Amino acid sequence: MRMYDIIKKKRDGLALTEQEIHFFIDGYVKGEIPDYQASAFLMAVYYKGMNLDETRALTFAVRDSGVTLDFSNIDGIRVDKHSTGGVGDKTSLVVAPIVASLGVKVAKMSGRGLGHTGGTIDKLEAIPGFQTDLSEEEFIKIVNDLGVCIVGQSHELAPADKKLYALRDVTATVDCLPLIVSSIMGKKLAADDDCIVLDVKTGSGAFCKTVEESARLASIMVDIGKSAGKKMLALITDMDRPLGANIGNSLEVIEAINTLNGNGPEDFTEVCLILATNMIYLAGKGTMEECEAMVKRSIADGSALETLAKMVKAQHGDERVIYNPELFEKAKYSREVKADRSGYIVRVDTEGYGIASLLLGAGRNTKEEDIDYSAGITLVKKTGDKVEKGDVIAVMYTNDENRFQSAVDRFMKSTEIGAEKPEERPLVFERVE
Amino acid sequence: MRMYDIIKKKRDGLALTEQEIHFFIDGYVKGEIPDYQASAFLMAVYYKGMNLDETRALTFAVRDSGVTLDFSNIDGIRVDKHSTGGVGDKTSLVVAPIVASLGVKVAKMSGRGLGHTGGTIDKLEAIPGFQTDLSEEEFIKIVNDLGVCIVGQSHELAPADKKLYALRDVTATVDCLPLIVSSIMGKKLAADDDCIVLDVKTGSGAFCKTVEESARLASIMVDIGKSAGKKMLALITDMDRPLGANIGNSLEVIEAINTLNGNGPEDFTEVCLILATNMIYLAGKGTMEECEAMVKRSIADGSALETLAKMVKAQHGDERVIYNPELFEKAKYSREVKADRSGYIVRVDTEGYGIASLLLGAGRNTKEEDIDYSAGITLVKKTGDKVEKGDVIAVMYTNDENRFQSAVDRFMKSTEIGAEKPEERPLVFERVE
Repeated sequence: MRMYDIIKKKRDGLALTEQEIHFFIDGYVKGEIPDYQASAFLMAVYYKGMNLDETRALTFAVRDSGVTLDFSNIDGIRVDKHSTGGVGDKTSLVVAPIVASLGVKVAKMSGRGLGHTGGTIDKLEAIPGFQTDLSEEEFIKIVNDLGVCIVGQSHELAPADKKLYALRDVTATVDCLPLIVSSIMGKKLAADDDCIVLDVKTGSGAFCKTVEESARLASIMVDIGKSAGKKMLALITDMDRPLGANIGNSLEVIEAINTLNGNGPEDFTEVCLILATNMIYLAGKGTMEECEAMVKRSIADGSALETLAKMVKAQHGDERVIYNPELFEKAKYSREVKADRSGYIVRVDTEGYGIASLLLGAGRNTKEEDIDYSAGITLVKKTGDKVEKGDVIAVMYTNDENRFQSAVDRFMKSTEIGAEKPEERPLVFERVE
Repeated sequence: MRMYDIIKKKRDGLALTEQEIHFFIDGYVKGEIPDYQASAFLMAVYYKGMNLDETRALTFAVRDSGVTLDFSNIDGIRVDKHSTGGVGDKTSLVVAPIVASLGVKVAKMSGRGLGHTGGTIDKLEAIPGFQTDLSEEEFIKIVNDLGVCIVGQSHELAPADKKLYALRDVTATVDCLPLIVSSIMGKKLAADDDCIVLDVKTGSGAFCKTVEESARLASIMVDIGKSAGKKMLALITDMDRPLGANIGNSLEVIEAINTLNGNGPEDFTEVCLILATNMIYLAGKGTMEECEAMVKRSIADGSALETLAKMVKAQHGDERVIYNPELFEKAKYSREVKADRSGYIVRVDTEGYGIASLLLGAGRNTKEEDIDYSAGITLVKKTGDKVEKGDVIAVMYTNDENRFQSAVDRFMKSTEIGAEKPEERPLVFERVE
C-alpha cells in the first residue's frame, strides 16, 4: 500500500477502505507518511468528502492512535457532555455538578481555549488554586467520591488528532465535516464513558452556520458513537449569539455559580437544564419529565452548587469563591460600551464578540500566552433588545487599559443595531437520537 | 501576506493575484513556506484550476525563481522545439540538425528521462564519448560555429519547478493543466530563445489523452510564451502509438540517423519534417511551402546529417557512428515477441510500451540508476497493421536476460489485437498559433 495511491483515489472521488484509512493514520502518527502527503490528502477530503463508513473508519483510527482510557474502576454510569464550542459557553461548569449530584458520574477531560472560544479548563483555573492536572488515581478517587472531576486532556489521547489538527490549522482544511467528526469523536471515544450528550452549536459563532449542517454533523457523530457501543444523543443549540451575559474566564465562573443558585440568565439556565436533563435521561434515570424535575430540584435544594464546591476543594481550589463570588479578583479597569444609535440589536457576530474578549486578554493567540482571568465582557443588551442611543450595551474588563480600543472597535463592528425587532430564535433547535 | 490565506482563497475557488503567486513561489523556493502548505495549495489548484492570468503569473514566477539565460552572444535567430514527452520521441535528434543546417540557431537544453519516457540527453549519451555537460563558453561557441548544441539542463534554471515537480510527483498533483503549463513554460522561458515550437502530444502515451485537452494546453502555452515576447507556435501530434519503430536509447539514435539519411519510418519522418518546417517558418525563413522545400533539401543533400556529425564531434562524441550506425554496441540478448492471435493491432498502450522498454533496462526508475543504452524495443508491427498468429510483432533487446519476461508480459498486455482494422489517426491534429 502506498500513500500516493490513497491520495490519488480520494482525489478522484473514490471511497477508501478501512485498511487504507488505517494505513494513513498509522503511518502519519509514526512519521512514515510525511506532512506534505497528509496535507494533500486532507485537501482532497475537503473537496471529495467521506461517506459514513469512511468517516467511521477514520474516527476509529484516530481513537486507536494512542491509549484508550479504562474507567472500569469508577462505580456507576458515566456520562459526558461535549460541546462543539462557542462563545460564553460555560455549560460544563453547571451541568457537570448537577448531573453528579443526581448520582451519575462525570469523569471529564476538557480542553483549553485557543482562538475566539474559551476552554473549560481555563475557566476553572480562574478559581484560585484550582488544579487541572491530577494523577489518574486522584482523578478516579474524586469521581468516585463526589461524582465529578474535570481535568485537562492527557496528551496521549488520540495523538493522531493532535497532529492532524495542527496540520489542518495551517492548510485551510479545518472546516470539513468528516475531519471535524473524526477529530471530536476520535478523542471522545478514547475516553471511557457509557453515555455522551453532544451539544452541537449552530449559528454565526459555530463551525456550522446553519441548522441543517449542524444536524448533519450531529447525526453522523451520534451514529458513529453508537457503532462504538455508546449511548448517544445530540442537541442542536443556538450559537448565533453568546450564551448567557458573561464572556471571559472568572466572569463565566461567576455566571455559572449564579445559575446554580437559581439566578442565572434565562437563556443560559434553560440550555443547562435541557442538557442536564438529557444527560441523566440517557443514563437511565427516568422519563424526560422525571429527569427534568430532578435537575430543577438539584438547583433548588443547593445540592448541585454544593457538589461544585466540593469538586473545587478536592481539586485544590479555594471553594469559598463558590459561595461568595465577590472574592474573585476584579479587573483593574472597566469601560462601558454604549449604543451609537437607537433601535433593536438585530444581529451580533458571536465570533467577533469572542475576539473582542480575546483582545481584552481573556484568551490566547498562541498556546504559550498567559490569560488575564478577570478580563472579559458583560453583555447588558442582547440580540432582540431595544436600545436608545447612549444606552450601555456592554461593560468590558481588563488589567491592561491599552486593550480597550481594539476590543471596543471589534465589539461595535460585531453589533448590528436596526429598526426592526428581529425574530426570536429557539435556544434548542433539534434533538438527534 | 500569509500562505494560509492564499491556500484558503484558492480552496474557495477565487483567483489569486500576481503578488500572491509570487509570494508563494518565492517563499517556497527559499524554504519559508513548508512542503505541507505547498501540497495543500497544489491540491486546491488541482480542483479549482487557475485562469490565464494566474497561470501566466505562476509561469513567470517559476521562470524568475533562478537565473535566466542570456544568449545575446549567439549570432542569429534562436529557435527551440519542446515536446511534452512521449515514447520513442527522438524528434530533437533529427529536427535540431536540420534547422541548424538551414541557418537557424538551436541552443538546446534537454532533460533526462525519468519513468516511461526517455530523455534526449540519455539518447545522445548512447553515442560513445558524447558530453552533455559543457561550460557555457563551449556551448555558445559550438552553437555559433555549427548552429546547434544540445546539453543537459542546468540545475539553476527555474529551481521552483524542480522543487514543485518533486512534490507534485508524490502528492498526485502532476496531472493539472496550470501546473503543467508553468512547469514547461517556466523552464522554457528561463532560456533565451526567440522562437519556440511546442510539440504537444496527445493520446494514450501523453499527459493529455484527448485532442481537446492538448489543444487547450497548447493554446495557453502559446499565449503565455507570446506575453513573454517569444514567437510561438504549437502542433498537436499523435502519441496514441509510439513515434517511429524504435524505443530505447541507441536504437532511437540509429533511427534518427536513418531518418536524416532519408530512410526513416514514414510516420516519424513526417512529424520531423513538419516540426522542422514550422521551426524555420517561425524563424522567418520564408513561406511554409518554401520552408518545407528547404527542410526536404537539407535531408536530400546530406547537410543535416553532416551537421549532426559535426555536433557529435564538437561535443566530444565519436562521430563515426553517425555515418556507420553498425558501430553502436549491440545488446547481448534479443528476443522476438509474437502475436498470440490473428487480426489487426487495434490499439496499443503507448505508456505500457515505454514501461516495457524501461523493464529491459533502457530507462531508470530512480535518478541514480544506470541505463543500458543498447536495451529497447523495435516494433515490427504497429497500430493498424494486420498480423497472423505467430508473426513477429516486435524484437526486444537487453544485456540482462532476466529482464525479458516482465517486459514481454507488459508489452503483450499493452497490445490489443482485434478483428477490425482501426481507423487511421492523423499524425498532426492541429496547429495552434
